[in-house]
Amino acid sequence: MRFDVTILGSSSATPIFNRNPSAQILNVNERLFLIDCGEGTQQQLMRNNIRAQRIHSIFISHIHGDHYLGLVGLLSSLHLTGRTKPLNVYGPPHLQEIVEMQLKYSDTVIRYPLFFNVNDPEHAQVIFENPDIIVESIPLDHRIACTGFKFMQKTRMRKLRKDKIQELNVPLGMIPLIKRGFDYTDESGQVHSFLDLTSEADLPRSYAYISDTICNWRYLDQIKGVNTLYHESTFMDDMLARATETYHSTAKQAAEVAHRAGVQQLLLGHFSARYRELEPLLAEATSVFPESKLAIEGKVFDI
Amino acid sequence: MRFDVTILGSSSATPIFNRNPSAQILNVNERLFLIDCGEGTQQQLMRNNIRAQRIHSIFISHIHGDHYLGLVGLLSSLHLTGRTKPLNVYGPPHLQEIVEMQLKYSDTVIRYPLFFNVNDPEHAQVIFENPDIIVESIPLDHRIACTGFKFMQKTRMRKLRKDKIQELNVPLGMIPLIKRGFDYTDESGQVHSFLDLTSEADLPRSYAYISDTICNWRYLDQIKGVNTLYHESTFMDDMLARATETYHSTAKQAAEVAHRAGVQQLLLGHFSARYRELEPLLAEATSVFPESKLAIEGKVFDI
Repeated sequence: MRFDVTILGSSSATPIFNRNPSAQILNVNERLFLIDCGEGTQQQLMRNNIRAQRIHSIFISHIHGDHYLGLVGLLSSLHLTGRTKPLNVYGPPHLQEIVEMQLKYSDTVIRYPLFFNVNDPEHAQVIFENPDIIVESIPLDHRIACTGFKFMQKTRMRKLRKDKIQELNVPLGMIPLIKRGFDYTDESGQVHSFLDLTSEADLPRSYAYISDTICNWRYLDQIKGVNTLYHESTFMDDMLARATETYHSTAKQAAEVAHRAGVQQLLLGHFSARYRELEPLLAEATSVFPESKLAIEGKVFDI
Repeated sequence: MRFDVTILGSSSATPIFNRNPSAQILNVNERLFLIDCGEGTQQQLMRNNIRAQRIHSIFISHIHGDHYLGLVGLLSSLHLTGRTKPLNVYGPPHLQEIVEMQLKYSDTVIRYPLFFNVNDPEHAQVIFENPDIIVESIPLDHRIACTGFKFMQKTRMRKLRKDKIQELNVPLGMIPLIKRGFDYTDESGQVHSFLDLTSEADLPRSYAYISDTICNWRYLDQIKGVNTLYHESTFMDDMLARATETYHSTAKQAAEVAHRAGVQQLLLGHFSARYRELEPLLAEATSVFPESKLAIEGKVFDI
């Protein structure tokens, strides 16, 4: 089952040439989830050959421009290019009000069902679930209400051993039961254990998106053991005071979180425009947590 | 005196790769005026080496996303990058409400004086004036309230003939008077006509920006004789019915306006995403009005 993330933006609020504000596309079994939607996200989707109409739902962390200013344009374009299937937006309080005011004054009546779901910025909640994944909100600590998101694959069913199934000529109707752990009794009365007819399921994987936050460990428990952690790293550690003052984190702090949470890989992003070169941020993180990577535009990471 | 326009965006509402929504920078004697501000305008400014902080004031034609969605991000960035000098925005009703709601919810207190001026969508008005130019709003006929803008250089003072001034050793204090038409009497009592000491002023030039509109000739009188006319040309003339239905114009109509208004050059823009190639639109316009040009990203036109 496909589970990867494509980075569409790596910059923080102040614009910088060749970087875009926050946006990511999470591909979960060919369903696309957009995480944050900074200005220019539509162009970034096109640049990465991702059809906007494939977006299943949208998750917005908070109402700072570099995380949501591309949303109204995207919603309008989906309307103009003929979307009819429903779209759910999961975001902070007031996002709906901001979007609907603009649709109203532009005299735009979106032709597809558009639903806004408000994330509680204080309490972790399951905000979305389908047969493949569960999404939880992660309360963060930023200057305004802000949540991260944890995308967790569900426990998968065991994998069918096709060779055995063919050999025994198992009726099709039995297959879902076998995958769920029922033994199979053939016509002669012989019992075949499901353990012999299946192999172990892939372990469920998980992705945590830690958007803008001061590094206060409050969210550590919730992200323990995720496979891939995205953590904002706006500054380097020599600017820790500035990071704290602006409710942001440093690359070193992100790496410490990754280390303490026991994740497999750390993606760094939301870089301040002061850093033309990003290698020093990467070096700072890898010195604490070796599996750190720069989540820059166009990169795709398997989770 | 410098008077030119740099095109930052040429697309209409539906996004298309390598085109950006409407935005232009008008340079009037090294003062920069931003006309419309579609999503991604900040990136386009950077791409064209124009410092956003140099923008003197902003003119927004109407509240359709492809004409204003870059505004909140730009205003925030000017704040983040230290602007202190005042900024005036001239735009349609409700623009201030849209911007201020977003600043409020993002807890952003803009540190420079920011003023919104509402353009009357029904009546042409002088909306701005400085020693170099006068700006008039142009009521247009679109699906929602929409105005164009006419930028008119003021009549310039006559140009000093430096050779004569030096030859006669004219006192500095006399020079502004001579430029204004006063004769100069030298120490010997001889009178020198200002006509001999100066040459004719450059003729004042003008630029009209006709944003989204159905082509109804209502605005023709107001743009008669401008040097350079920008006119939206969303469609080609075989789609006239669609243009009319959506309150837009065709390239042929834009050219007919240019011809009847007696302008010197016509800039075509706001192209529908259906046109990958723009040469056919240009050909349609030049067949009616030869001095037609494609106003595409990065082009600079002297007015």
